[in-house]
Amino acid sequence: MTSERIPRDQATAPFFVGVDVGGTNIKIGVVDDNGNTLAHTAVPTDESLGAEAAMRRSRDAIANLVAELSLTFDDIAAVGLGTPGSMDIPKGLILEPPNMPSWRYFPLRDCLSQLCGKPVGFANDANAAAFGEYWVGSGRQFDSIVMFTLGTGVGGGIILNGVSLDGTHSFGSEFGHIIVDSRLDARLCVWGGGQGQLEAYASAPAVAARTADLLAAGRSSSLTNRVARGEELTSLMLFEEAEQGDELSREVIVETARLLGVGIVTVVHTVDPEAVILGGAMNFGGHATATGRMFLDRVRAEFRARAYHVVSDSVSIDYATLGGDAGYIGAAGIGRTLFRQTKR
Amino acid sequence: MTSERIPRDQATAPFFVGVDVGGTNIKIGVVDDNGNTLAHTAVPTDESLGAEAAMRRSRDAIANLVAELSLTFDDIAAVGLGTPGSMDIPKGLILEPPNMPSWRYFPLRDCLSQLCGKPVGFANDANAAAFGEYWVGSGRQFDSIVMFTLGTGVGGGIILNGVSLDGTHSFGSEFGHIIVDSRLDARLCVWGGGQGQLEAYASAPAVAARTADLLAAGRSSSLTNRVARGEELTSLMLFEEAEQGDELSREVIVETARLLGVGIVTVVHTVDPEAVILGGAMNFGGHATATGRMFLDRVRAEFRARAYHVVSDSVSIDYATLGGDAGYIGAAGIGRTLFRQTKR
Repeated sequence: MTSERIPRDQATAPFFVGVDVGGTNIKIGVVDDNGNTLAHTAVPTDESLGAEAAMRRSRDAIANLVAELSLTFDDIAAVGLGTPGSMDIPKGLILEPPNMPSWRYFPLRDCLSQLCGKPVGFANDANAAAFGEYWVGSGRQFDSIVMFTLGTGVGGGIILNGVSLDGTHSFGSEFGHIIVDSRLDARLCVWGGGQGQLEAYASAPAVAARTADLLAAGRSSSLTNRVARGEELTSLMLFEEAEQGDELSREVIVETARLLGVGIVTVVHTVDPEAVILGGAMNFGGHATATGRMFLDRVRAEFRARAYHVVSDSVSIDYATLGGDAGYIGAAGIGRTLFRQTKR
Repeated sequence: MTSERIPRDQATAPFFVGVDVGGTNIKIGVVDDNGNTLAHTAVPTDESLGAEAAMRRSRDAIANLVAELSLTFDDIAAVGLGTPGSMDIPKGLILEPPNMPSWRYFPLRDCLSQLCGKPVGFANDANAAAFGEYWVGSGRQFDSIVMFTLGTGVGGGIILNGVSLDGTHSFGSEFGHIIVDSRLDARLCVWGGGQGQLEAYASAPAVAARTADLLAAGRSSSLTNRVARGEELTSLMLFEEAEQGDELSREVIVETARLLGVGIVTVVHTVDPEAVILGGAMNFGGHATATGRMFLDRVRAEFRARAYHVVSDSVSIDYATLGGDAGYIGAAGIGRTLFRQTKR
């Protein structure tokens, strides 16, 4: 079961808007009380024009969606907003988001709230995506989940009994920073720091960098031909060649699964959720491909081999199901939680 | 500031009883509404006589404490009970506590509740100790803390805004199981499993085992003389020799601090607390000795070097202050929380 696109006349009021800010685009969706999407769109982030302009564009896009659905702003009970960290959630501030210098220390939540005339729930983008999976995605049958997102970086979210674990400094569930290799000569993240952290091994650029090291060391692989043709070595290329039977590509994916499994053991023994969900763009095709299934099997096996039996027998590990929609759906869900708390 | 022993006439009603079950003794204290101890005692666990007999002994000891204080059972608002894991907190069961086979699957909470005629709050012993430090110990000025306990094993507790993070399987904050070394040939815990887990490096027996390996490899140390005299190599001996200037002892303690710092980085980036508290018997003398101060300095330095600046600048790391009283004080505090929730 996943969140569905449904027509207006099958939707359940009240309605919520989710806004998912990314470095390139801002995804926006109108979601009903059951987490189904009525309509969604995206506007360019245009970081250089500043945060307020982006919030105005978002407001206009929301107005258009609402009009297309023959709704008015009165039908929208609340808005949710997910943004890249770092942030101050209680104050509604975005602090120092990566690659968005003009947005620093902007009061994003209150700006959007004033523009829309609605209460705005505010969350880290990865926590918002985790909330989406918890509400209507891969985690819908569980009361508590942990989500790891593998993409340009490694992020995560923790949802316990419907509440996102944001942390004191709005810096909870930053799984890219957990350490899976404590050696003094452990790998650095591709940005040059983060020695031995999960992001140094399991982000898409880190997977490519680890593969490049093996190729440079003289390992043979079908990747070599493609790199020689001028293609950029990426985790997607690795996936494609693994599907074609390339041993080196498979080996890197297996080691990635092993280290992700190590990270999952650590996080599960810290927060003890019912389920772990693997999201983000780097899923090696997910359940639809042999490589994606192999990756998941290896993650599960590493977890089962290392976890204490009380949890190893009972914690579910599976892929996310909402894909790129998880962020705005989850943001809408966080807006819904705020609305229901206020109403009570 | 720490919890104080105060006379009856300076105490603030209502009163609570904390019961902290250990493998050898059961510590019991009467605590006032401010977390001050009025009186405390201990009874033998006598595991072989079974759990119900131990709860009856505990009830009798509580009755004696109450009488000594010229109180009656009516003056006790609630009881709190901390026990070694594993456990099922919602059901009030102790499941498979280590070295306590006759206690398995016993309904400990309800048994004590019936014997005392009081509501009983139930917690993992390490979470209870963390709650004690949070309430009136090293964490009293913070809203959220994480505690690592280093002793026979490595345990921990997470308290977020007054709530213990117990987890779905009552298996949250089991920091002994977090992985600090993912290598395929990483150390095993002294019980033979737990490869690369923090407990394989930072428990008292693990510290002794790591030292023994270095001595066996021919490293010179003043420890060698003591071991040759038939003394057992322990973390306490390591501490004593480090205080006397032994380089090898110091080296092992420094490496222990490094790996504990790695574990702290991981946990802080997962739950993002205000403070980290180091409890348990293995504290190398704490603030009172040069070795204890050096250990804490090294833990802090490792954390600061590896953590993201948002948290590295603001998370406090310090020793616990309640010592062996933390468990019963925290259990009493968890009983108090239960009482206040029920009253509302």
